[in-house]
Amino acid sequence: MDEHNCDIAIIGCGPAGMSAAINARVRGKEIVFLGSEFCTPKLHKAPHINNYLGFHSISGEELRKKFLSHVQAMGIEILKSRVTAIVPQENDFAVQTKEKVYNARAVILATGVGVAQLLPGEDEKLGLGVSYCATCDGGLYKNRRVAVLAYTHEGVEEANYLAEICEKVYLLPLYKENPKNHLHVHNNVEVIENSKPKSIEGETLVSGLKLEDRTLDVEGVFITRDSVLPDKLVPGLDIEDGAVKINRSLSTNIPGLYAAGDNTGQPHQLAKAVGEGQVAALNAVKYLDGKYSK
Amino acid sequence: MDEHNCDIAIIGCGPAGMSAAINARVRGKEIVFLGSEFCTPKLHKAPHINNYLGFHSISGEELRKKFLSHVQAMGIEILKSRVTAIVPQENDFAVQTKEKVYNARAVILATGVGVAQLLPGEDEKLGLGVSYCATCDGGLYKNRRVAVLAYTHEGVEEANYLAEICEKVYLLPLYKENPKNHLHVHNNVEVIENSKPKSIEGETLVSGLKLEDRTLDVEGVFITRDSVLPDKLVPGLDIEDGAVKINRSLSTNIPGLYAAGDNTGQPHQLAKAVGEGQVAALNAVKYLDGKYSK
Repeated sequence: MDEHNCDIAIIGCGPAGMSAAINARVRGKEIVFLGSEFCTPKLHKAPHINNYLGFHSISGEELRKKFLSHVQAMGIEILKSRVTAIVPQENDFAVQTKEKVYNARAVILATGVGVAQLLPGEDEKLGLGVSYCATCDGGLYKNRRVAVLAYTHEGVEEANYLAEICEKVYLLPLYKENPKNHLHVHNNVEVIENSKPKSIEGETLVSGLKLEDRTLDVEGVFITRDSVLPDKLVPGLDIEDGAVKINRSLSTNIPGLYAAGDNTGQPHQLAKAVGEGQVAALNAVKYLDGKYSK
Repeated sequence: MDEHNCDIAIIGCGPAGMSAAINARVRGKEIVFLGSEFCTPKLHKAPHINNYLGFHSISGEELRKKFLSHVQAMGIEILKSRVTAIVPQENDFAVQTKEKVYNARAVILATGVGVAQLLPGEDEKLGLGVSYCATCDGGLYKNRRVAVLAYTHEGVEEANYLAEICEKVYLLPLYKENPKNHLHVHNNVEVIENSKPKSIEGETLVSGLKLEDRTLDVEGVFITRDSVLPDKLVPGLDIEDGAVKINRSLSTNIPGLYAAGDNTGQPHQLAKAVGEGQVAALNAVKYLDGKYSK
């Protein structure tokens, strides 16, 4: 798989991530900025924002556009690529996406609020049949039956990829926007549109996916979501009260790894996220300069 | 002296204070917003700002005007009044200015970076001859000799006020801008323009002010600065590494007292200050709602 080296990888393109990106760039660092397909739906949906200093009475969508223009004006590209794992290595981090591995000397997690609620069984069965990345783990399910819970459109691609390997693929399109438009599926994929997942079943390994009206007999459950919980992305990351545990410099328990924005806890607010993005970026720069300038 | 009650007093009209003010107002709190004559000279002087998300390549002065317009558009008044002390009382805080006492149920300190260096002797002799408020302490120096170190124009008024009470007043105009324009002084005031203060002298009480070229025989030294150090304003406030000691909610060791912006420590940056102003305000609101809604 392709590899790419950089100073700082920024994960997540909401206000915290964008603020981190412009600040790291101002300080002359080489960054990789990994975001979702549509940056910050939360901002997009806000009808009216009054409490981000400098813009009185602006719509969320207008502000979102201003933020994106700012990022673009600084020549920063947002790579639409989902991060599936971040693995601390001896001198850097391996930031894994489906397409590439990015080796980054520091990482800023700006992943937003995690999913409010995981499916029952999801957490317990991670690595035991539950996966967030078909490209990474699909090979383990050769000639087996799997389900794809597509909370994003990307799940459709995942299902089609798995259809080539697996005996049978069930696809549940759970995203909101125009699901029909995207449903060009492999003929080994069965689309289930009118039932929601209730829980992931199994003694030790996954043996089924319980829906509202029936249970699918599957050994693998692949889940695509815009944000995976931070401690699912980074093995060993400390979490406290449901948020990434950070100190005043926004560093986590893993040296070189910073967090900013909603994932560090309440209040889930714009100015707080933008401020934290800045603080995380400046401290990541300080960390790199201290570590590598000798 | 006049008294006035409010929910939240915000001290300091830089980016942190302004952000706190708009956020407290959005949450419907009655605020008193106390600032200096010219809000945020630091921003005014910044030639070029690139790292406050939403504004690419803007001058500090342009951004300062946008911030002030935002505050004004929300009907928030900035009172140009220097706070001389903040005293925790049983159910609220007495926020003292020369003109008025504001009784606030919560206080947000957004006082900026403290003075880089105090005069030798200044800290030790506070209350023993050193004062930050002529109106408050002038009476103690009746028929005595005093000096006024005017790091702001306000020192000129202080000197004229003291001239009516004291035997003799020395005035050192130490502010930068057009000192001559403002020097309409009482005939009991001697202006010293070509010498800088070196230290405040005395065994226990103040007995002199040492200048570069001589020592003034005075028993009182009045100092006007835009920002007094936070722990000089609030007796008992915990300081750590030169910054107000705060936790993640930006509360200090004194319940109901919050801090935001440069006074909480590095990095001394705009977005960080704006973000902290928001967090401090929202937590102050939470504190009040928890405390007073029952």
